[in-house]
Formats: sequence, C-alpha cells, structure tokens
Amino acid sequence: MEAIKQGVKKRSWTTRLDAKKKRMDSVKGIVGGMVIPTEHIVEVMEKLIQPGDRVVLEGNNQKQASFLSEALALTNPNNLFDLHMIISSISRPEHMDLFERGIANKVDFAYAGPQSLRIAQMVEDKQLKMGEIHTYIELYGRLFIDLIPSVALVAADKADRYGNLYTGPNTEETPTLVEAAAFRDGIVIVQVNEIVDELPRVDIPGSWVDYIVVADKPYELEPLFTRDPRHITDIQILQAMMVIRGIYEKHQVQSLNHGIGYNTAAIELLLPTYAQSLGLKGKICKNWALNPHPTLIPAIESGWVESIHCFGGEVGMEKYVAARRDVFFTGRDGSLRSNRTLSQMAGQYAVDLFIGSTLQIDQEGNSSTVTRGRLAGYGGAPNMGHNPGGRRHSTPAWLNMMTSEDPLARGKKLVVQVVETFQAGNKPVFVESLDAIDVKKDTGLATAPVMIYGDDVTHIVTEEGIAYLYKADSIEKRREAITAIAGVTPVGLGHKSKKTDELRREGLIALPEDLEIRRTEAKRSLLAAKNVEEIVEWSDGLYEPPGKFRSW
Amino acid sequence: MEAIKQGVKKRSWTTRLDAKKKRMDSVKGIVGGMVIPTEHIVEVMEKLIQPGDRVVLEGNNQKQASFLSEALALTNPNNLFDLHMIISSISRPEHMDLFERGIANKVDFAYAGPQSLRIAQMVEDKQLKMGEIHTYIELYGRLFIDLIPSVALVAADKADRYGNLYTGPNTEETPTLVEAAAFRDGIVIVQVNEIVDELPRVDIPGSWVDYIVVADKPYELEPLFTRDPRHITDIQILQAMMVIRGIYEKHQVQSLNHGIGYNTAAIELLLPTYAQSLGLKGKICKNWALNPHPTLIPAIESGWVESIHCFGGEVGMEKYVAARRDVFFTGRDGSLRSNRTLSQMAGQYAVDLFIGSTLQIDQEGNSSTVTRGRLAGYGGAPNMGHNPGGRRHSTPAWLNMMTSEDPLARGKKLVVQVVETFQAGNKPVFVESLDAIDVKKDTGLATAPVMIYGDDVTHIVTEEGIAYLYKADSIEKRREAITAIAGVTPVGLGHKSKKTDELRREGLIALPEDLEIRRTEAKRSLLAAKNVEEIVEWSDGLYEPPGKFRSW
Repeated sequence: MEAIKQGVKKRSWTTRLDAKKKRMDSVKGIVGGMVIPTEHIVEVMEKLIQPGDRVVLEGNNQKQASFLSEALALTNPNNLFDLHMIISSISRPEHMDLFERGIANKVDFAYAGPQSLRIAQMVEDKQLKMGEIHTYIELYGRLFIDLIPSVALVAADKADRYGNLYTGPNTEETPTLVEAAAFRDGIVIVQVNEIVDELPRVDIPGSWVDYIVVADKPYELEPLFTRDPRHITDIQILQAMMVIRGIYEKHQVQSLNHGIGYNTAAIELLLPTYAQSLGLKGKICKNWALNPHPTLIPAIESGWVESIHCFGGEVGMEKYVAARRDVFFTGRDGSLRSNRTLSQMAGQYAVDLFIGSTLQIDQEGNSSTVTRGRLAGYGGAPNMGHNPGGRRHSTPAWLNMMTSEDPLARGKKLVVQVVETFQAGNKPVFVESLDAIDVKKDTGLATAPVMIYGDDVTHIVTEEGIAYLYKADSIEKRREAITAIAGVTPVGLGHKSKKTDELRREGLIALPEDLEIRRTEAKRSLLAAKNVEEIVEWSDGLYEPPGKFRSW
Repeated sequence: MEAIKQGVKKRSWTTRLDAKKKRMDSVKGIVGGMVIPTEHIVEVMEKLIQPGDRVVLEGNNQKQASFLSEALALTNPNNLFDLHMIISSISRPEHMDLFERGIANKVDFAYAGPQSLRIAQMVEDKQLKMGEIHTYIELYGRLFIDLIPSVALVAADKADRYGNLYTGPNTEETPTLVEAAAFRDGIVIVQVNEIVDELPRVDIPGSWVDYIVVADKPYELEPLFTRDPRHITDIQILQAMMVIRGIYEKHQVQSLNHGIGYNTAAIELLLPTYAQSLGLKGKICKNWALNPHPTLIPAIESGWVESIHCFGGEVGMEKYVAARRDVFFTGRDGSLRSNRTLSQMAGQYAVDLFIGSTLQIDQEGNSSTVTRGRLAGYGGAPNMGHNPGGRRHSTPAWLNMMTSEDPLARGKKLVVQVVETFQAGNKPVFVESLDAIDVKKDTGLATAPVMIYGDDVTHIVTEEGIAYLYKADSIEKRREAITAIAGVTPVGLGHKSKKTDELRREGLIALPEDLEIRRTEAKRSLLAAKNVEEIVEWSDGLYEPPGKFRSW
C-alpha cells in the first residue's frame, strides 16, 4: 500500500472554493455585502464570471431571469467568452445574442420554442456548438453529475438583506439550479424584483445565495398555460369526448398530467358537463400534476379536483389559487408553491396518464416536434410521456394496460397522443418518416431527436377514432391500428376499410360510434365556459386574465 | 353556463388549513411557540395527529427519525389508530410495533431490509395492510399526487428558535418529505439533536416547519455504506477486474452509481492499482452518484474522482468529506450536502451505469431480492437499475449500447448485475423461476415484486464470466448467454460447452481469459487498502470509522 500511496502527489482540495473567494474579492469595491447595485451588474458579471465557465441561466417555458440574461449579453466578449450555457428553455432573443456576440459558444438545453428557428440556423452556421437536447429533469440531473455549474443566474420575487428568497407562486426550477451551484462552490446571483425587511415566506435559504441584485423591471413571466376557450373547435370537442369515454372512463384514470394545448383544454372544460352526465365525478381525474390552467377552473369549482401539484405558476391565477388552498399546494403566505423538479418527478412516476400533442407521427407511433429547420426541443414531454421502468406500484389504470398472462407481467403508464390528422397549412401529421431523421444528419446529433417513442405510446386519438396501441402484440398490428385512424394522410390512404371492421372487433381501434358518441353532439355548447369571461365568472372574479386574453 | 354553475354547491376551500389550526390550537397549553417539550411529545402527538391520518415518517436505509417513531409507538391506540404510514425504509422495531399495537394499519414503503421477515409475517397474519412497494423517488412522487401526507415526522441535527433547520451531512430525504406536508396544510414536526442560536447553514427554512422537539438522544444513523476490505474475497476481486476491463474500459463508463456491497467495494479499491496499471485514470469513473463510501478514499486520493453527489452521508466520513470539497457537494459550513431525491434523479437520468447485486436471477435476467418469507423491498435499485425512457442526451457509454442500424435507434443505460452463482448456504442465484412469483400470490400484491427486469439488464457478471445481454437480439440468445455464465446451478447445468465457444466468438459472453485476466492474478494484494486501518491511512487520519470497524 505504501508504494501506491507514495505515487500520489499532494494537491489542494479547495481549488473551487479558492477560485470563488478570489472572484468575490475582486468585486468588493463595487458590491456592498450581498447586494450588487443594479447599474453595476454588467461590470460585476465580468469579474464574477470567467471565460470557459459553465453558466446555468434560469429560463423555462414561463419564467425567465431576464434582467440577468440581458446583462450577460451586454458584457464585453473580449473579457468574457467561450461560456458553456445551460438553459432549460432558450426563449429570449438575448439568449441567442450570447452566441452571436461570442460570449458563449456551447449550449445544453431542454426546450427552445420561441427560438427554435434561429437556433437551427446558428447550428448550421457553426456559431453555436450544440451540447445535447434534454427533457427537464434529465438536464437537472446532469447539474449534479457532469454539468455542474460554476455560476447560477436565477430570479426570485423578493429577497431580504440576508439573501433569503421568496419566489412566490413561481418557485419552478429555481431551488434546483441554486442547489447545484451553491453546494459546489459555484457563485449564485439572484435577480429580485425588490428587497424587503420581512419575506412572506422563505422558499430558498440565504445560506445558498451569494449575491442579489434588484432588477430594473420584474422578471419575465409568460402566461403559457392559458388557452382561450373561444378557439376550441368542434373537432377538438369530439376528440375530448372520445378521450373521456374511451380512455379516462374505460381505464379509470385517476391521476394525470395535461400538457399545454386546446385539446386538453377542451377535456378540462367537458368535465363538469359531458363527463358529469356520464356519472364520472369522483371516479376519474382527481389528482393532477399540472400548472394552474384557467380552463380547469370550472372542474375545480364543480368539485372534480382533489389536488393539483404545479411545475410553475400561471399569470392571473394567483388570487384564485390562494383562495382554493384545499386543491393547490400553497405556503403559509397563502400563495402557490410550485416546484418544477418535484412535479416532473411526480409526473413521471406517480400519475396514471400523460396526454399531449405533436407535429409528426410515423407509422410505428414515434413522434416529434422537431421538424426541418426547427430545433424545438422537448421540455417535459419525454419525461412524462414514457413508461417509467422503475415504477413498482400499481393503480387500476396502470394494471388495466396489462395484456399478458406472464406471471412477471406488469402494468404500464398511459401515454396518449391527441392530434388532428393534418396540421395547419395542410401538412399531414402522419408521415412515412420523421423529419427528425434528417435533422439528426444535418445537425450532427448522435441520435434522432424523437420526442416520444412509439413503444411508449399506448393510445393515439384523431378525429377519426382511437388507436389502442397497448393492445397491439406486434409492430404489424401497431401499424395497422395507426393507419386506420390516420385519415386521408399518405399513411392513412394505404388503409383498407375492411381492415377497420376487423380492428374494431379486436378492440384495437374505436370509432366515435363505438363509444356511443354522436359526431353531431360534439358542439361548443358542451363547454363549461366558452370564453375567458365565463372562466372569470366561474372563478367568482378571482381569476384575473392578462390583458391579451380580455375582450370585454 | 349559468345552469351548470347553479348546480355547484358553495363549500369551504380551507378545510385542511382549518383542521390544522384546530389541531395546533389544541396543544397551545403544552407547547411554547414552536418548541414541544421533550417529555410531552407523546401527549402532543396524540393531539396533533388524528385517527386515519396519512403520516410520513422519515426513515431511509441510514437516517431515522427514531425519537419520533418511538414516541408515536407509545401513543394510546384507543385515541390514535388506523394511521396510514408512509416510510421509505421500515428499519426499526417500533415501526412494526405501530401495527402490532393497532396505531397504524397500512403501510407504503420502498425498503424493509432489517424488518423484512417480520413484515412478511404480519402481512400473512393480516396485522398490516400492504399498500405498495416502491422505489424511492416513486414514493416521493406520490407524496405530491395521491399520497399527500397530513403529518410529516422528520429529523435534523439542529434548529434555531425560528425553526430553521440544519441537517448537516444527512439532508437525505428530509426536504422532500417536509415540502409535501408543509405546502398542503399538513403538520411538520421535526426532532433535532439541539436548538442553537445560530445555525452553521440553513438546509430547510423555518417557514416550512410547525414544531421542533429536542430528542432525548441523537437520531439513529447507520453506517450502511461502509465495507471492511478485510472481507473482500479473491472471487470478488476477479469479478471486479472483469468489470473494470470488460465493462468500464470497453464502454468508456465515465459517470456511475455503485450500490452497497463487497463487489463494488472491490472495484473501488482496484481503481488506483489494477485500473491504474491499464492506463484508465481520467478515462473512466470520473463522476459519481454515490454515498461517501470509505472504500472510495484511495481512488479519490489518487486523483481518479472529479465529483460525487450523495444520497446521504456516511458515519465517520464527515471530516474527510469536509477536507475534500473539490470532490463532494458541501455547504458554506464545509460539511456535506446530500439530497436523496436529487441524487436518485441524477442516478436515474444522468449517469452511464448502475451496478448492483441481487439474490435471484431467472433465465431471462429478471431479478429480485424478495424471496419467500422476506419482503425486502427495493430502495433505489429499480430507479437506477432501469433504462430511463425519457433520456435524450448521449454519452459514449450510452451510445456504445446501440446495436441497431435503425435511424431512430438510441443508446441505453448500462445496468449491471454482479453475483456469484451461489449465495451463502449453497442456494443457487440462478433459478428457473423467481420466488417473487409465489410472494405475489401469498401477499396479494398486484404484480410480482421484481427488483430489476431482464430487459433492462445489459450485463451479468459471475465468477465464470460476463454475459453481454445488450447484444442478444432475442430472448433465446439472452437465455443462452445467461446459462453460459450460471456455473453449476440448475440453470447453468443445462448449458453445453460447445455453445460457450460460439457465444464467445459472437461477443455475447467473455471469460476472464478473453479479457486478458489471469484468475491467479486476482489476489487481495491488488487492493489499494486491505483493511479499514489502511483506509484511515489513505485519508491522512480524516476518516474516523465507527467502533465496530476498528480492530486496532
């Protein structure tokens, strides 16, 4: 042993801490205690951050550390360059400016909705080195393994003089990003809307925070989960009826996540009407992993909902949530406590069903929102939209997916895709081959950017009917069921109508009539609220929609 | 809309908060502010907790809220009964007393190592209603969905007068359990070792805590991850060499989790010797999701390890960890910050490899530690020991598992089982059929309690060789590879030696000689430390092993 041990060189084990202290010392002339003067943020960032740093910048699909990202984009690329950015959601123009200006050169992310065209172009132009595309908690996981950040730039509502933070309803991913940096001698900088003497509650302890800075304006918050019922179509109502009857009722779905979109908004607005008329209250849709969707208000008011755990907040829902604390997770101050990490974890492991939409589906059920020239990423969909192999507990819906007599057989999570057979612009959703395959080649990604894999999808719902893919015992059967509901898309046209009857008999597909749904009944009059004003009425005036949703 | 809305009854939306206030009011005469007098804990619990409550009690495989569990077991079952307990790990005798005395009647859990015999017996005797068996973060996920606790009983090192908590190195699952109760108007009671004026750091804010109580003795902490190298056998060293050569080097495994056990301890102790001689330093085993294993000290000291994120702490490792903060996640106070939830999430989504052991494996590679009369549960194994379907990022090891030319093909997590073909007592590990199937029948579980499913296992290592199961393109091939390394177990005896050569040529199995390992070289002299004393030497005296590991 001595021989081996002698070969070991003495080294310092506090290099990270020493580097942090040195950086912090360098700003002592500018920063009073923990508080960075607003007007000095760019100068301070140039000292606290160093070229080559791994910087995690808060920004998911709703909440953005916008003051800090703007400031970072204003730093001098002669001093600060080659940053490796980690951003859940690339959402703001200055996120891309970082790369154009040469301040950053590499990015790892989960979602790039608003910037998906520009990011695809910059990868092609080699202005940006693509790290990897992730699902949210996969990216969070890497913050503790091989993407440990040197700096975290995050946002909170309020801080006190000790750096304790109040995030209000939008706690979201902040604690997770801060934890990864704070406990590895990284530097944590928090933008706050104000500094106060006493916080309504503490969401993140001051022990985890190095600097606070009062932003010039409140951090950006997008009302991303608000869907105006005015835009819900009869086809979406038909699909929602099929989902309620042919999936939620059939399999006794009690816990679930709804994604963003008009399809799921339609389902939410049919619970107090159509689903109520079927006698399903108390039997389905009780426990949710879901943001505070305004379109769920009528169902909440009608007593359908036992609990909702949220990834984030929703602009305008603050007072409503505070007044319905039997349903939501709230703090002592009365406002929502969201947590993106924990809600994604619960949405992965603890719910019966995930339902979402997509842009392309191939004949085996693989789907993606990544299409040519558009590097959108996935957000939480791959995480919630797969069958978690580590799950060991059962629920009626999960057990209902068992199709085998094998003594080791187990249930399955329900993963549902709801799409119309054609997207806007007459583009078919059902395709022979996903664009993702070409995107892989063009961008040099190691694998094709598939959002949800076919073997995870249990149901596809179109305006034609439902394909019960979990029942297909072969790839061939799965293809048949998909083509049978693919309408007049090139994929659907290959289908023979004789086959339809066979698949209906086998229970591999169901048409609306098989579910006792008349297409003529699928009308907007079934919606519990037909516009935002009616949602406000349901909420007793507690829901305060942002201006762009007000038409009265 | 009015018609629907009129059918809705007015109700209170603060029933949970009102109930909490009422309970808290009922103890005002006994409790001064937040602090429950130690001697009144039983009386106070009888008032704060109500029959039928869902109670989450902290207790994983290491850390136990032992004062609170003892107190709960002393309450009067005439006043307090029918509790539904949620306990990560059923470890202590009084956990079972709760059921014997009728205070609790149902349990949901993840692991029941020390009480696995008694729990099996009580289920048989119908003294205990089995909820479900989980993997850790699946159970945590349900705390936010359909197992929301009314009461949380947890442990911390220190509190201040405001209820802010310092957990020290053993943060573990405490913040997650507290968050689930605190933000749903549940009652949070924390046992602490002491109350102090100023905390070294804040791990959990006082805003989340209702009551603190000073325990009569420090909470129980088990040194579960300490393996004395003295007990490592030559066979385990041979297997460790095969793993290093035939898996870690072959697939370039950079990030990983090691479970508990002598097999993985042997690997850790071979890194600075055998693996070093192969020139692998800096190429494998850099980033870890792992508790502070003492047997990893020689590798850390030799510069093998870049980072370790921990589920929990390990008794005796406190000073060493604090002195090696470049490697571990530590707080401002210098001590470890562990987090069971985040580390499990990282161990699921962000590492290349999980490696563990088991008690039974069938011919298709399904395995379980649940055997007849022993309801052990799983802990974190199913979570880390499966291929996470939501993963979208690639690493060299993950990509190395791709065997298909399909344009949508993706990589796979490496899930390795290391076993000797026979357990202690000459029981074969390889069996025709898992005991779990009988346990399912006997206990009325909905599915057989399998720990790791065969289709998730990429490699099995025995003293005979390695089966590369990820390469098997059929169940038949998988069976052949498994039987080829199953030795003289009943399963292995069915194997023909001619087949072995064919499988070696195809790369489906490798024997030690195929990996250029001579069995005669597999000697204890290869271990970087041969006993605990040598580990202490490696640590420069910083590691302070508990008494039971000291022999000098």
